[in-house]
Amino acid sequence: MFGFEISAHCANTAARCGCFHTPHGPVHTPRFMPVGTLATVKGISTDQLARTGAQMVLSNTYHLHLQPGEEIVAAAGGLHGFMGWDGPMLTDSGGFQVFSLGDLNKIDDRGVVFRNPRDGRIIDMTPEHATQIQMALGADVAMAFDQCPPYPATENDVIDACRRTHAWLARCVEAHSRDNQALFGIVQGGCFPHLRRESARAVADFDLPGIAVGGVSVGEPVEEMHRIVRDVTPLLPTHKPRYLMGIGTLREMAVAVANGIDLFDCVLPTRLGRHGTALVGGERWNLRNARFRHDHTPLDPSCPCPTCSGGHTRAYLNHLIRSEELLGLTLLSLHNITHLLRFTTAMSQAIRDGCFSEDFAPWEPDSPAHHTW
Amino acid sequence: MFGFEISAHCANTAARCGCFHTPHGPVHTPRFMPVGTLATVKGISTDQLARTGAQMVLSNTYHLHLQPGEEIVAAAGGLHGFMGWDGPMLTDSGGFQVFSLGDLNKIDDRGVVFRNPRDGRIIDMTPEHATQIQMALGADVAMAFDQCPPYPATENDVIDACRRTHAWLARCVEAHSRDNQALFGIVQGGCFPHLRRESARAVADFDLPGIAVGGVSVGEPVEEMHRIVRDVTPLLPTHKPRYLMGIGTLREMAVAVANGIDLFDCVLPTRLGRHGTALVGGERWNLRNARFRHDHTPLDPSCPCPTCSGGHTRAYLNHLIRSEELLGLTLLSLHNITHLLRFTTAMSQAIRDGCFSEDFAPWEPDSPAHHTW
Repeated sequence: MFGFEISAHCANTAARCGCFHTPHGPVHTPRFMPVGTLATVKGISTDQLARTGAQMVLSNTYHLHLQPGEEIVAAAGGLHGFMGWDGPMLTDSGGFQVFSLGDLNKIDDRGVVFRNPRDGRIIDMTPEHATQIQMALGADVAMAFDQCPPYPATENDVIDACRRTHAWLARCVEAHSRDNQALFGIVQGGCFPHLRRESARAVADFDLPGIAVGGVSVGEPVEEMHRIVRDVTPLLPTHKPRYLMGIGTLREMAVAVANGIDLFDCVLPTRLGRHGTALVGGERWNLRNARFRHDHTPLDPSCPCPTCSGGHTRAYLNHLIRSEELLGLTLLSLHNITHLLRFTTAMSQAIRDGCFSEDFAPWEPDSPAHHTW
Repeated sequence: MFGFEISAHCANTAARCGCFHTPHGPVHTPRFMPVGTLATVKGISTDQLARTGAQMVLSNTYHLHLQPGEEIVAAAGGLHGFMGWDGPMLTDSGGFQVFSLGDLNKIDDRGVVFRNPRDGRIIDMTPEHATQIQMALGADVAMAFDQCPPYPATENDVIDACRRTHAWLARCVEAHSRDNQALFGIVQGGCFPHLRRESARAVADFDLPGIAVGGVSVGEPVEEMHRIVRDVTPLLPTHKPRYLMGIGTLREMAVAVANGIDLFDCVLPTRLGRHGTALVGGERWNLRNARFRHDHTPLDPSCPCPTCSGGHTRAYLNHLIRSEELLGLTLLSLHNITHLLRFTTAMSQAIRDGCFSEDFAPWEPDSPAHHTW
């Protein structure tokens, strides 16, 4: 269980195709993972989600701890039973949310104390507690509880965050005792190359079934993120899946795959969908725009998603969005998730076909990948 | 086309099973029709809708005229193409909405002038215009443009409304020229038995493919509505489908079916769903209620809807509703629509089995219909 087989390499880049085995089935990489923060991908049923090509689905420890609480999820047989998703699942540890959303009261080497914004209750979160919650939630993959420094941060602050992240990882490993759940470590280090490299080596030493690169997409310039990925991935074990957290734009995923990243997640496709925006051909279309009012073409004729293959037109989506109909948000979110999954699947095919470096790296809107994408 | 075959009668009541033939397939009666006001059943995809057992789906002339406008729907190949529903469809004429929602400026024998609440534009609605809009929308069934008096109304006001409704029906019939679309007349008459009977005879004289009983569920006591149905249905042609507008509660549907009504529509199942309420065993359950927090039973274990048969539990729905997740509204609406469709299907089965009068008429929460329902 939790083995990772690499089935193809790109001859010119570090890109690879792999298969990560979980108790709920395989995850073929490179692959985008849709985010179901509160045990639901917003507006999308699990039947619909299955039709997007999704394999591993994310959920969030911080949010589920606050509502409904992990005891309720555990009593339902874990996240899979609770939300009715039979495929692989991963829970984020909540570290990112504790630091970005919580009303922080105190942080020290022991852990974090914060106030629940829902009811004012004081929550004490430690690596042990975050691990116990994730064991109760029962996803196939749990993430270590880490300290994600903001951007920008001073070198000293990032050194502190790295030290804590590594010490907390040791405590997560110690606390984790669920055989049918993998624990992934998270590399931090902000935008300091030597700290990133140090963190990559420290986390790699734990020899866990997978490693994530965290602390990206927190406000840093995109070139910084690319540099971090370039610096870090060569230091990670080859035969473990590598997960770049919070990234889900085409160009950034292509650059990351070229550097050997395997997994991605991002709330963007559902968030854009809820705002009436569709991802089409590398562009963002605001479907509320009057130019779509009389456009009876399917949203993206090349797309196999339920929205496009169901024949739903730009004019219909324009009508739904203008009418503030819930179905508009659902149909756009379904399309956007499928769009990102198609893109990662197309990269996988290109790696196998030996044309990844030509077609996808670097990915530009006019990249010559139209035979696969 | 638009034939109505009666396949079974109840020996003790006026209930009957029938099949109404439309260009988009049969409608087996008695049957509930879900409402898709703006060319979408709120929060539900057409794939999901098909799984509820829905056959004929309603949409609304008034709302679609204002947004997106019938030209856009017509350019998409009509409502079926626009919303992607291949089954039978019916458009309400908009009469009810013009009188209940519009900012009425003027009403006379010619028609109605009102102000569009969306953009302040003045709209001139006549029987001819309402018919033209419905021909452009292209549903299988169009409804005559009628005047629906409020409740209470004076006898003189109802006499006026009836006179107009009948004169307008003649003009709708004259204006209607779409062979693959049936036009139904609407019986008015408020709560005045002699006016109801007069209206029933007047509308029946037009010999249209179907007749609706309108002007009910406008605030009158439920016993009044039952009396109207009892008074009117014996005067309607036997071999035409009879549609009781705006009714969708179990008891009222059972009483109406016992009096020979075939079709129903109601926004209640989706409206309740959007407010976190499920129809279960004749009760209304507020899924936000704390008593469901730890209840890991499927919403209604006897129900074949995607929500219940998909194993979604009361605890999960409680979580979704408390988290204000869109999926909660979708799952509850799907269940509620299925619930009403199951009930009308169970009545149909009982009529064929010869046990309708025993099991369903009158319908009470403890009615002995559990072998079919």
